[in-house]
Amino acid sequence: MSKIIVLGAGMVGSAMAIDMAKNHDVTLMDINADVLKKVQQKAETLSVQVLDVTNKSALQNSIKPFDLVICAVPGFLGFKTMEYILEAKKNVVDISFFPENSLLLDKLAKENDVTAIVDCGVAPGMGNILLGYHNERMKVTGFECLVGGLPKVKKWPFNYKAPFSPVDVIEEYIRPARYVENGQMVVREVLTDCELVEFEKVGTLEAFNSDGLRTLIDTMPHIPDMKEKTLRYPGHVEYIRALKDSGFFNDDPVEVGGTKVSPLEFTSKILFDEWKLGETEEEITVMRITIKGEQQEIVYTLYDEFCTRTQTSSMARTTGYTATATANMFLEGLFPEKGVFPPELVGRHEACFNYILNYLKDRNVVYNMETRPIKKA
Amino acid sequence: MSKIIVLGAGMVGSAMAIDMAKNHDVTLMDINADVLKKVQQKAETLSVQVLDVTNKSALQNSIKPFDLVICAVPGFLGFKTMEYILEAKKNVVDISFFPENSLLLDKLAKENDVTAIVDCGVAPGMGNILLGYHNERMKVTGFECLVGGLPKVKKWPFNYKAPFSPVDVIEEYIRPARYVENGQMVVREVLTDCELVEFEKVGTLEAFNSDGLRTLIDTMPHIPDMKEKTLRYPGHVEYIRALKDSGFFNDDPVEVGGTKVSPLEFTSKILFDEWKLGETEEEITVMRITIKGEQQEIVYTLYDEFCTRTQTSSMARTTGYTATATANMFLEGLFPEKGVFPPELVGRHEACFNYILNYLKDRNVVYNMETRPIKKA
Repeated sequence: MSKIIVLGAGMVGSAMAIDMAKNHDVTLMDINADVLKKVQQKAETLSVQVLDVTNKSALQNSIKPFDLVICAVPGFLGFKTMEYILEAKKNVVDISFFPENSLLLDKLAKENDVTAIVDCGVAPGMGNILLGYHNERMKVTGFECLVGGLPKVKKWPFNYKAPFSPVDVIEEYIRPARYVENGQMVVREVLTDCELVEFEKVGTLEAFNSDGLRTLIDTMPHIPDMKEKTLRYPGHVEYIRALKDSGFFNDDPVEVGGTKVSPLEFTSKILFDEWKLGETEEEITVMRITIKGEQQEIVYTLYDEFCTRTQTSSMARTTGYTATATANMFLEGLFPEKGVFPPELVGRHEACFNYILNYLKDRNVVYNMETRPIKKA
Repeated sequence: MSKIIVLGAGMVGSAMAIDMAKNHDVTLMDINADVLKKVQQKAETLSVQVLDVTNKSALQNSIKPFDLVICAVPGFLGFKTMEYILEAKKNVVDISFFPENSLLLDKLAKENDVTAIVDCGVAPGMGNILLGYHNERMKVTGFECLVGGLPKVKKWPFNYKAPFSPVDVIEEYIRPARYVENGQMVVREVLTDCELVEFEKVGTLEAFNSDGLRTLIDTMPHIPDMKEKTLRYPGHVEYIRALKDSGFFNDDPVEVGGTKVSPLEFTSKILFDEWKLGETEEEITVMRITIKGEQQEIVYTLYDEFCTRTQTSSMARTTGYTATATANMFLEGLFPEKGVFPPELVGRHEACFNYILNYLKDRNVVYNMETRPIKKA
C-alpha cells in the first residue's frame, strides 16, 4: 500500500481516486470543497483536502508525504503544475493533457531522479501504448486512431455531450491537425476530411481531422503515415463548421449592447449549456486503433459504456483507469526509468503492456484485437 | 409636381427618394448626415435634411410644408412616427412595417381628414394589392404568398444576405406564424413545414412558415385558407434552427467574462456581419402569389434582379417602387378615402390596381400572371 495524491476532483480525477483507494492510501485534492465532499460520500476511505495548485508552495508542501502524484488538473494548468511536482522531486502520472511539449521537463525530471508518465488516458494514452508495444515487434508503416466519447441519447442538432471540459472540446475544433504523411509532417484544417465509419453496437459515425497525435510525431519518426481523427454522430461536424464559418468561433471581440464580447467565449458558454453531460447520463467511448505493418495490420477496437452499478462515466473509466493502471504498474516497479515519458515509451515493454491491458480488462475496459493480412495490389 | 418628404435614407428610402425626384420636389430626411450626403451624390435635385423622427416637434415642424410623407423608418419606430405624422394632418405612405396594428390609428387619420396607406412594399404590399383586386371580382377560397429576397452569390452555411435590416430578419425567425385554415386563425411555429419549391431562373428554394399575413387576417375574414411562407436557398433554415434549438436565440442573458450578454443580441451581431449585403452585391427578389377561386387559381410570379445600371437593389426596387407607385397614384387623386388603409383596400379599385401594376412595369418590376383551372377530385 502506497500513499497516493490525486490532483483534481473532476469526473475523471474522482474516478481515479476511488479506483486507487481500493489498494492504497489516497488523498484527493481540489480547489472546490463542495466537489470534494461529494466524492467522499462515494468512497469513505478517501481523504480530501482543498488546494489551489497554482499556489506553488502550498502544492509542494501538500504533496511532500506522498509516493506518487496523479495529476488531473485542467489542461491550461497542467504544464506548470507538473513543473512544480518535478521540482518537489515527486513521481507523477499525468492526464491533464496540457498543450505544451512535456519533453521540455525531461531534464528536470532526470536531475531530480523522478519519473513522469504523461498523456496517460484513452486518447492520447492507449493508442500510444498499443503502438509503442507493436513498434518494437514489427516494422510499422502506418498508424491510425479514430476515437470519440458520445452520449447514448442524441439531441439535435449537435448529438453531443462533452464527457470532459467543453472548453477543451472547442479548443480541439480550432487547433489545426498535425499528421504524418509519406514521412512528412503536414498540417490539415481541423474538422475536414469527414468520412463515415461503421462501429458495432453504435452504427455509423463520422470521423474528421483533429490534432491528437501529440508526442507520436516526435517519438515515432520512422513511421511514414500517422493520423488521428475524432468520432461524432453524423451531422455534428456540419453544424460546428456552420458556426465556425459564420464567425461564432472568432477571437476578436464584437460589441454587443455596449460591451465587448469574444464570439468564441460566448459560443463556448452557449455550447457548455447545450453539451452539459448529466452526472448519470449514459455515454460511451468508441475507439479503433489500426497499426499497419508490411504483412498485416493489427486493429484494436474499444466499445465502453457508462457503468450503471458504480455510476462511473465511460470517459472516466477508459481515461482514468488507463492512468490508474499505469500508476499501479509504476508502483510495482515495472517501469524504473527516470525522466518524462509519453505512453508509447512505456507500452514498448512487454511487462508494462500486459499489466495495463490486464488491469483494464479487470475493470471491463476491453480492447478487442484483430489481425488482418495486408492485400498487396 | 408635389412636395414630397421621405423619412429614412436606408437602401429602400433612398431608392424611393430618387424615384420620386423624377417628377416631384423631394426632400430626404435621416438622422445620419453621412448617409444623406451619399444619396445626394446620386441625385442632385434631391434636398436632404438631418432629422431625428423621435423628436416629435422637430418631425412635425419638418413635414409641415409637404403634400405627402413617405415613411421608411426602422420598424420599431414606425407606429409612433405615423402617429406624429397623422397628428400633424399629413398624408402618408408607409413601409416601416411596424409590428403594431395600424388600424388603431384609423380614427386619428379620419378625424384629421388625412390618408395613410400602410405596408406598401412587396410583401406585405403587392400580395395584398393583388388579393384585394381579385377578391372583389371572384369568390376567393385560398391565398398563398411565397416570398424571399436572396443574394445571387451563395456563401455557405446560410446562403443569405439580408436585403433589409437583419434585426427584422431575425425577428421573423422568432415570431410564431399566424395562418388561416378552414376559417380559423391558427398559430404555427415559425421555420417549420419546410417544402421545396421550384422557381424559374433560380431553381429549388425552400419555403417555411413565417408570419407575413398581417392585416389580411382581419380584412379578409371570409377567405378560409391563407398562408405566407418565406423563401430561402435550401439549407438556410436547417442552420437557423440549429442555432435556435441550441440556445443561440434565447433572450435570457448568460454570463460571459463577467458581463451579462443576451444570446439573441449576440447572435444577431454575428449574423449581421455574416449577412451584410454589400452595396453593389447583386440580389434577387422572388415571389409567387396564388389566389384560389372556385373554378380557377390565379398565380402571379415575380422574379426581379439588382439593377446594375442604376445600382439599385432588387429589394429597393420591388419594395420601394410599390410605395412610390402608391404615392403617385394617391397624388393623382385615384384614392380619395380618408383613414388608415392596408394595400388590399387600395388594390380593390380597378384604377388603383392598374396604376400600380403599370408603374411597376415601367420600372421593369413585372408580375407575370397565369390562370389555371382547378381540378376537381
